[in-house]
Amino acid sequence: MKQLLIILILLQTFTVFAQNEDLIKYANPLIGTHKMGHTYPGATVPFGMVQLSPETDTLPYEVNGRYNPSVYKYCAGYQYDDPTIVGFAHTHFSGTGHSDLGDFLVMPTVGELQMNPGTEDDPKSGFRSAFSHDNEHAEPNYYQVMLEDDQINAELTTSNRVGFHQYTFPKSSDAHIILDMMYGIYNYDDKNVWTFIRVENDTMVTGFRQTHGWARTRTMYFAMTFSKPFKQYGTSDYSKKQVYKGFWRKFDQANNFPDIAGEQIRMHFDFDTEEGEKIKIKFALSPVSTANAVENLNTEIPHWDFEKAKKDGQQLWQKEFEKINVTTGSEEEMVNFYTAMYHTFLGPTTYMDVNGQYKGLDQNVHQADGFTNYTTFSLWDTYRALHPFFNVIQPTRNADMVQSMLAHYDQSVHKMLPVWSHHANENWCMIGYHSVSVIADAVMKDNIDFDANKALDACVATANYRKYDGIGYYLDMGYVPEDKNSSSVSKTLEYAYDDFCIAQMAKKLGRDDVYKEFSKRAENWKNVYDASIGYMRPKLSDGTFRKDFDLLSTHGQGYIEGNAWNYSLYVPQDPATMIEMMGGKKQFVKHLDSLFTMDLPDEFFAHTEDITREGIIGNYVHGNEPAHHAAYLYNWTDQPWKTQDKIRMILKKQYQAAPDGLGGNDDCGQMSAWYIFSSLGFYPVAPGSDQYAFGSPAIKTATLHLENGKTFEIEAVNQSDKNVYVKKIELNGKAIDRRYLTHSEITNGGKLTFYMSSRPKK
Amino acid sequence: MKQLLIILILLQTFTVFAQNEDLIKYANPLIGTHKMGHTYPGATVPFGMVQLSPETDTLPYEVNGRYNPSVYKYCAGYQYDDPTIVGFAHTHFSGTGHSDLGDFLVMPTVGELQMNPGTEDDPKSGFRSAFSHDNEHAEPNYYQVMLEDDQINAELTTSNRVGFHQYTFPKSSDAHIILDMMYGIYNYDDKNVWTFIRVENDTMVTGFRQTHGWARTRTMYFAMTFSKPFKQYGTSDYSKKQVYKGFWRKFDQANNFPDIAGEQIRMHFDFDTEEGEKIKIKFALSPVSTANAVENLNTEIPHWDFEKAKKDGQQLWQKEFEKINVTTGSEEEMVNFYTAMYHTFLGPTTYMDVNGQYKGLDQNVHQADGFTNYTTFSLWDTYRALHPFFNVIQPTRNADMVQSMLAHYDQSVHKMLPVWSHHANENWCMIGYHSVSVIADAVMKDNIDFDANKALDACVATANYRKYDGIGYYLDMGYVPEDKNSSSVSKTLEYAYDDFCIAQMAKKLGRDDVYKEFSKRAENWKNVYDASIGYMRPKLSDGTFRKDFDLLSTHGQGYIEGNAWNYSLYVPQDPATMIEMMGGKKQFVKHLDSLFTMDLPDEFFAHTEDITREGIIGNYVHGNEPAHHAAYLYNWTDQPWKTQDKIRMILKKQYQAAPDGLGGNDDCGQMSAWYIFSSLGFYPVAPGSDQYAFGSPAIKTATLHLENGKTFEIEAVNQSDKNVYVKKIELNGKAIDRRYLTHSEITNGGKLTFYMSSRPKK
Repeated sequence: MKQLLIILILLQTFTVFAQNEDLIKYANPLIGTHKMGHTYPGATVPFGMVQLSPETDTLPYEVNGRYNPSVYKYCAGYQYDDPTIVGFAHTHFSGTGHSDLGDFLVMPTVGELQMNPGTEDDPKSGFRSAFSHDNEHAEPNYYQVMLEDDQINAELTTSNRVGFHQYTFPKSSDAHIILDMMYGIYNYDDKNVWTFIRVENDTMVTGFRQTHGWARTRTMYFAMTFSKPFKQYGTSDYSKKQVYKGFWRKFDQANNFPDIAGEQIRMHFDFDTEEGEKIKIKFALSPVSTANAVENLNTEIPHWDFEKAKKDGQQLWQKEFEKINVTTGSEEEMVNFYTAMYHTFLGPTTYMDVNGQYKGLDQNVHQADGFTNYTTFSLWDTYRALHPFFNVIQPTRNADMVQSMLAHYDQSVHKMLPVWSHHANENWCMIGYHSVSVIADAVMKDNIDFDANKALDACVATANYRKYDGIGYYLDMGYVPEDKNSSSVSKTLEYAYDDFCIAQMAKKLGRDDVYKEFSKRAENWKNVYDASIGYMRPKLSDGTFRKDFDLLSTHGQGYIEGNAWNYSLYVPQDPATMIEMMGGKKQFVKHLDSLFTMDLPDEFFAHTEDITREGIIGNYVHGNEPAHHAAYLYNWTDQPWKTQDKIRMILKKQYQAAPDGLGGNDDCGQMSAWYIFSSLGFYPVAPGSDQYAFGSPAIKTATLHLENGKTFEIEAVNQSDKNVYVKKIELNGKAIDRRYLTHSEITNGGKLTFYMSSRPKK
Repeated sequence: MKQLLIILILLQTFTVFAQNEDLIKYANPLIGTHKMGHTYPGATVPFGMVQLSPETDTLPYEVNGRYNPSVYKYCAGYQYDDPTIVGFAHTHFSGTGHSDLGDFLVMPTVGELQMNPGTEDDPKSGFRSAFSHDNEHAEPNYYQVMLEDDQINAELTTSNRVGFHQYTFPKSSDAHIILDMMYGIYNYDDKNVWTFIRVENDTMVTGFRQTHGWARTRTMYFAMTFSKPFKQYGTSDYSKKQVYKGFWRKFDQANNFPDIAGEQIRMHFDFDTEEGEKIKIKFALSPVSTANAVENLNTEIPHWDFEKAKKDGQQLWQKEFEKINVTTGSEEEMVNFYTAMYHTFLGPTTYMDVNGQYKGLDQNVHQADGFTNYTTFSLWDTYRALHPFFNVIQPTRNADMVQSMLAHYDQSVHKMLPVWSHHANENWCMIGYHSVSVIADAVMKDNIDFDANKALDACVATANYRKYDGIGYYLDMGYVPEDKNSSSVSKTLEYAYDDFCIAQMAKKLGRDDVYKEFSKRAENWKNVYDASIGYMRPKLSDGTFRKDFDLLSTHGQGYIEGNAWNYSLYVPQDPATMIEMMGGKKQFVKHLDSLFTMDLPDEFFAHTEDITREGIIGNYVHGNEPAHHAAYLYNWTDQPWKTQDKIRMILKKQYQAAPDGLGGNDDCGQMSAWYIFSSLGFYPVAPGSDQYAFGSPAIKTATLHLENGKTFEIEAVNQSDKNVYVKKIELNGKAIDRRYLTHSEITNGGKLTFYMSSRPKK
């Protein structure tokens, strides 16, 4: 990992053990931007609506009507090893394995006007530019890069809803700002549906971009203002759809015409510049209207002080980072920890204007009543550790996220909670109905700033929506039959876990009928366990297991993003019974040992999605989520120390302070939340319960500043890279010999002390 | 006109002289539906948002990338001589010469499900049906037709924002309601941009249709509810744009799936029906949102009583018709008069939800503060007589229309008043800036329920917008040069008239600088008068008149929708000076006489737009607007009696009580407003002045019930088809010998008595 050196050089100062120190410097947005991490390096504030970040390519989603596999690496718009930047767009996902967004590409140029992006091989053929990592810098809420072709220094910062660009130009009588409304990430069938732009005056432009794609009916509105009046402007229309011309021919619509609409539009704004002159742009978003975008702009950044905007946003990051002060054994671990914090606080993102309005799933405008509306719920990923992490360190925001999910439910024509939702759309990505896990986890952890009984009703309705992904079969037969609905084992296992969550929540709320029904459903995982082979296995609608079955393959075997080895372990709600069924503790330990040590053929990796070779340890796939709890399962055997060394091994191997340091998609913070929990020494194996399984802390000390005003301290005495085994655990000075911590033990405040050793405690 | 007989038969009762009688019966929505009238026969209330009317074809705007001239006759969706109906859509223009709309086609069928419209030649090949005028009936706010193919009786009525369908089915286990979201009038490039539909439950469907076309960025929202739950439903997606499928494949999206979006969508809703069973549909529109459509629905028609809805709407019509009670010499004249009233009250249409929200030109949602927001301003047509008519009989609505135009101005990125606007869009159709005429006319007639000084500022800004249609040249040179901007004579003449309007308004408001500037501009018509030939003539930018020039042609001669013979007369603000310049009164009378009596070759008619052979009298073209004032110009000569006989001739020839009874496009009521004024005996030659030129009344008596509570009576003593000449005029019993009436003489109330004779008063 050759970039590691560069990263470390960028960290100019480093002080161990200082509290309230500058934590911003540890978070490095470039980590994960190479290969499979799918993070973006640009500027944003915690949970911000705007993610203003460079784009390094403009690939179409399809070529000749077929999926273009090369787009995959551009899920976040930027790949670290690319040599050119085509512009800076305002919306990005962090760490996803499918994509969308990339709204409103802005690019500064000088010299002859070029309205096409040009190619990577010949960036001077268009408005794109070569760049070098030697003159690129990223930190939370700040990104800088020298655009080499035209020697323009680009700097980006943001507030929640406003992107702030600062471009330092050479002297020129021919300087341009390109606004490319055609650019998009995963630009499916040139996915623009419509574009509308108004040049309100010589410093203000408003409009919207409507797309289909992963979000099927999506519109983002904007208001863009320049620090200096442009001297002229123009429009190029590349629409395939033929727009009615008629009496519009009265006008020269290409030049200085303020009233623009079409399917595929690019604009240019022209300036004279002095040497070193800075042209600044504030670019506000709104999910509702251009009027709201203007209000967001004027409310959030009413000035033109780029440094102030940068500092204001960085103070928000510092405040978030200070919620956990850690000390570690190395600078790289500090970087890993706070970069993980950074990644976990990138989303879900704000989806509400300063006036409280947002676009709902029904495409109507709603007023958020008493909560902040969030979007981008990658729930198949994030229910596992991200939302549990928020229940510890961001409970107010997590309760608002639940409110946002309940609003989605209210607006859903299916009356379903979100599956994978973003920007007023459900995209149905992946499987399960894991909203119920997020809601149950919040309820079980008493983070209930919402109507819990209504939330339970929403969970039950979701779990009973027969049209959805085999639920009808699941309700009738107790499992999803593979011949009726593929990935049937994964679905059955995850539905059963989700049902456990509903049961727990119902029990707490005194809803016994629901508790009974869903406790029974929570055992449905047993229906797909084939005792004859010791694995979960696809079952057919006639009740027999499918004969043809491959334990290693991830394709067509009844699973999704995981093989039988990994996914068969997915009974987080009841590992003890699962282990019993799988032959008991001894047998299970052998099984787990094999998982982590198997030597698999390269062919296996070629067909594993979303992860690099490095994302796999033996046959254990950390780069995808289904086995994220697996290393903790030793806790349910007689050899818990194997959890401890496996966790430390995974932390070391899968998270490194380099652009290619993430072994798989960060998945909207799930991978990073795993890092944080595991570094602190515990992990929520079954969200919806109040327990965290102990692992092995990788920090030296940690202080969690909780929203209730209390602090929870963690100390790992004698911890080192060698001393990975837990000899003893004390809570508030009293030894505890159970293998889990409860949520209230954290929220009550206090101190958890791990005594570490180089030898396992057998 | 063979349909005349049918019409007369439909009028079952007829009583002359009865006041407060049923006036509904005289208004026949079928008049103008054949050939060039471009009216629609369906149901609507006065100024209603919904125009629910049958469609008789589904032609595309283009065939093989070229304009399809056949669409022209479907501007209103229906042509009387067509043999089939393809469904009933909810939005229509009345009488336009270009088109748009046709939103949300609904069609009932029984038997095998057919999702394609089929063809006119073989209606049974699709969901369309043959029909016959023998079983078709139209009256204000009610339309009925038997759909012969499936023997379904269709009935339509409306409230302002809700269409109400009532379909009487035969017995069937296979009855369907088709909802075709693809259908559109002037379906330019299959002009759907996007479609979004939700099946909320088994009786309610919501969604929107977004189109480009004459309105470039237009979205109409709907809420549709059935009187009986459908037993199943389905979707056919004909989108050319490939929509992302992804995890949507989890669902069977074609059947009973409630969450639908795409570019080209049709749906079906299936029922079992008993013999004679009525299935009713209420279909609400909103320009803002589906939530507002639901609110409109529940507010306006909270019941399922079709007869009540019909009656409620007809009472609105009766109330409007009663504003002018006339007696005439024949049943046909009664029909013509009240049908003209009907056509004038079809628009501008309400464009605001019951909660006061509407979509603005800036595509933001606005709240109408103290006025009703209207849309569809066909101003090149309607400034002439329609808005002046409203200043007499609908002053409150007209002031709201001005407020709507001022809101348009506020929302315009050009800061221009509307030219031809509809549904939150400017389509720029035709020429001039005639909003200023409408505003000035309201101001001059003291119908000022708006900020008149702000309105004047808007007029001045509009008249000075250099980008618009040659205004830059006009400002610099005093005329539009034909080599720079075509139709330059028409533009120069109309700009000069509009400038007169601004000047009058400025004078009244004490804005002397504006008055002086625009009084000077109002004389610019002189710059295009070629004294050497006695006609207005295209002038080039070098100051010379164009050599090549044809007095008869309407194409390429510096005019639009008119030739030099007709258009040269367009100096309504100063006929006296014009006549002087054209050689004096005697010479001018000869000229006018020729206009009405020339025998022109057929070739001439072949190239005249928007009108039938019958729309032309000699060389006088009544079917287009530029010469609508021409017959009144005899008043400025020594032979005013020639105005009188010409007006009566035009009334007779151009307006007949038959489907093909209108000689040209009704043009959003302008043609009908001409009929009403002229029938009453006077006409606003120059809106923006307070004078009405006298003509020859065609009624016997008329009582105008004014909004100020006063009545203005007109009596035409001894009037008959022969007695068309005015011998004497008395106002309140006192003879007046001037040739005009003033507006205040009307609004003060009183009685105008014409004494008629068979001989001109020379």
